[in-house]
Amino acid sequence: MRGFAVVPKAGDRVEDISTPRPIIDEDRLAGNIARIQSYMDSHGLAFRPHIKTHKIPSLAAAQVAAGAKGINCQKITEAEVFADAGFEDILITFNILGPEKLAELAALNERISGLKVVADSTVTVDGLAAFFAGRKPLTVLVECDTGGGRCGVQTPAEAVTLAKRIHAAGSLNFAGLLTYPKIGAAEAVQAFFAAALEGLKAEGIDCPIVSNGGTPSLFDAHLVTSATEHRAGTYIYNDRSMVRAGHCTEADCAMHVLATVVSRPTPDRAVIDAGSKALTSDLLGFSDFGTVVGYPEAVITGLSEEHGVIDLSKCTGARPQIGDKIRIIPNHTCVVSNLFDTMVFHRDGVVTRVEDVAARGLVW
Amino acid sequence: MRGFAVVPKAGDRVEDISTPRPIIDEDRLAGNIARIQSYMDSHGLAFRPHIKTHKIPSLAAAQVAAGAKGINCQKITEAEVFADAGFEDILITFNILGPEKLAELAALNERISGLKVVADSTVTVDGLAAFFAGRKPLTVLVECDTGGGRCGVQTPAEAVTLAKRIHAAGSLNFAGLLTYPKIGAAEAVQAFFAAALEGLKAEGIDCPIVSNGGTPSLFDAHLVTSATEHRAGTYIYNDRSMVRAGHCTEADCAMHVLATVVSRPTPDRAVIDAGSKALTSDLLGFSDFGTVVGYPEAVITGLSEEHGVIDLSKCTGARPQIGDKIRIIPNHTCVVSNLFDTMVFHRDGVVTRVEDVAARGLVW
Repeated sequence: MRGFAVVPKAGDRVEDISTPRPIIDEDRLAGNIARIQSYMDSHGLAFRPHIKTHKIPSLAAAQVAAGAKGINCQKITEAEVFADAGFEDILITFNILGPEKLAELAALNERISGLKVVADSTVTVDGLAAFFAGRKPLTVLVECDTGGGRCGVQTPAEAVTLAKRIHAAGSLNFAGLLTYPKIGAAEAVQAFFAAALEGLKAEGIDCPIVSNGGTPSLFDAHLVTSATEHRAGTYIYNDRSMVRAGHCTEADCAMHVLATVVSRPTPDRAVIDAGSKALTSDLLGFSDFGTVVGYPEAVITGLSEEHGVIDLSKCTGARPQIGDKIRIIPNHTCVVSNLFDTMVFHRDGVVTRVEDVAARGLVW
Repeated sequence: MRGFAVVPKAGDRVEDISTPRPIIDEDRLAGNIARIQSYMDSHGLAFRPHIKTHKIPSLAAAQVAAGAKGINCQKITEAEVFADAGFEDILITFNILGPEKLAELAALNERISGLKVVADSTVTVDGLAAFFAGRKPLTVLVECDTGGGRCGVQTPAEAVTLAKRIHAAGSLNFAGLLTYPKIGAAEAVQAFFAAALEGLKAEGIDCPIVSNGGTPSLFDAHLVTSATEHRAGTYIYNDRSMVRAGHCTEADCAMHVLATVVSRPTPDRAVIDAGSKALTSDLLGFSDFGTVVGYPEAVITGLSEEHGVIDLSKCTGARPQIGDKIRIIPNHTCVVSNLFDTMVFHRDGVVTRVEDVAARGLVW
């Protein structure tokens, strides 16, 4: 009984879409894919887009068609969706532990030729080695903490020790080093990798992949000359945090969240139908929840689940009225994608396609 | 090709569930439903649970079976799911605008007997009045801003004026007043409602419903003696913010997010597989991202999308090891529900059922 006009279709006008909903500008999307691939190509770096941002196989296909060497996933179940879509070179940048996940991982490893995972501890390595004994060997990279403060071995010496353990396990293939770096720390990444590579060379262990990552560090990628590849996700849509970082302009932000002004309780307050279940509460260092396109002085001061409160007190020009549809550049695009089962694409305001966010909401 | 052991089933042990995943304790759930209904009953207040927290019809059915008079939704599409499940008394607490939503709303109004919406402006009221002309009349409440700072008319006099406009529209039925109050502002709510009721009485306009709301204000509900009903959502699962507010104890938190420690890069750092795509970035005034059950001194200091970083430096006792499964009480339960397509329920650690989060991810 549901859904009179809920799902837009090709040819619909963006202005007629029921809000709140993210929409993706096809030309900006294509521009982002081309621009970053070109940067990587010009520096001789292989590029491995992270699919977490879009979770849509056709978009990853466009990234690969542009020259990407493979893809990066964060969960086995995400990788399974992309394997179903024909992708063979998939790196899962996660420590995989526990019998239920290892069984999934082994089945996936049988299906595709280029599956790779990371490990940063003997517990993870020994778990993989034991589970894969007697199976098709699994390819493993050592994750290094080069200052990012998340996962990873703490020193180049530890990286070498763990690589030796992987190398020695008959059921595993050691394939390289990987980091998710601190922003602006190219020098530290380079130093860590260089020392680890020297150690591996001394041990006679080959290291075909040296993988650096992150959209925030994207345009520093060429400074890490020891790296063979870079991974990034956010760049495909871009968002307010990328504008702030100087990696793109607002005109490169392919994702806008459409919202409607549903209340103007006071002259200085507008309330929209996009709250934390459309924009998320990700601040990423901002104190407000997105950029309102066309109203640069409007500030989204607070979100409840289905309402956003906008302070208009600093607006010197026009103020949005009840019923007006507005567009918001979200602070963080990846988490917005993750809320919606379908994504609407458009060119010049006319819907071109609606894609399933196929790898959304998958538990491991 | 997906899904070896991805979806748990009744009889599975919670310890064997692949993480990250929220799980709901059946006994705590039932206790929360009974406790709050009993409070409302003891004060002669009708109770209208907000389904935004769980988005699952069978849970709303349990709330109604316990004595709730009807339900509260925030979107038409949510209401449609609950109408499909047989609910008739549904209040949508939102200003509904625009032709695509009004068409949906009119269709829903034909299907169920007790649909109600709110309005806080002449724009919204006139839009409803025009669209419903010649159709089954729509029941409308006036939303009042009693200090919450979101939607709502600003004064009791404005409430009366808008009620008169609804009352005068042949296609609308005026049914009452509603507020989403500021926390701890029972006195202001009472004063606003009392003044508006006096004004309505002077105009000869009947006001059958006076609806107060919010789990944060739940145990102040009886102080608003002018109210006929109270609305609340979060209480059914409870969360860390409700513990802080003194509305429940940790033992009343029915939702735990299961996570696995996947890395221990340093003695003071643990990394888990629950990030902002499992816990969300909702802080609700906290500076960290949830309570780690059994490790009271552990602090979830940061989330990336699929990783959570825990600072163990203050832990005086045991520290979780790689591979350990831990449980987290999230800051805000409603937004966690909204990330998962299915919800797992258990009793004493044994899975009892897996429910579709049926109203999740619906665009309007």
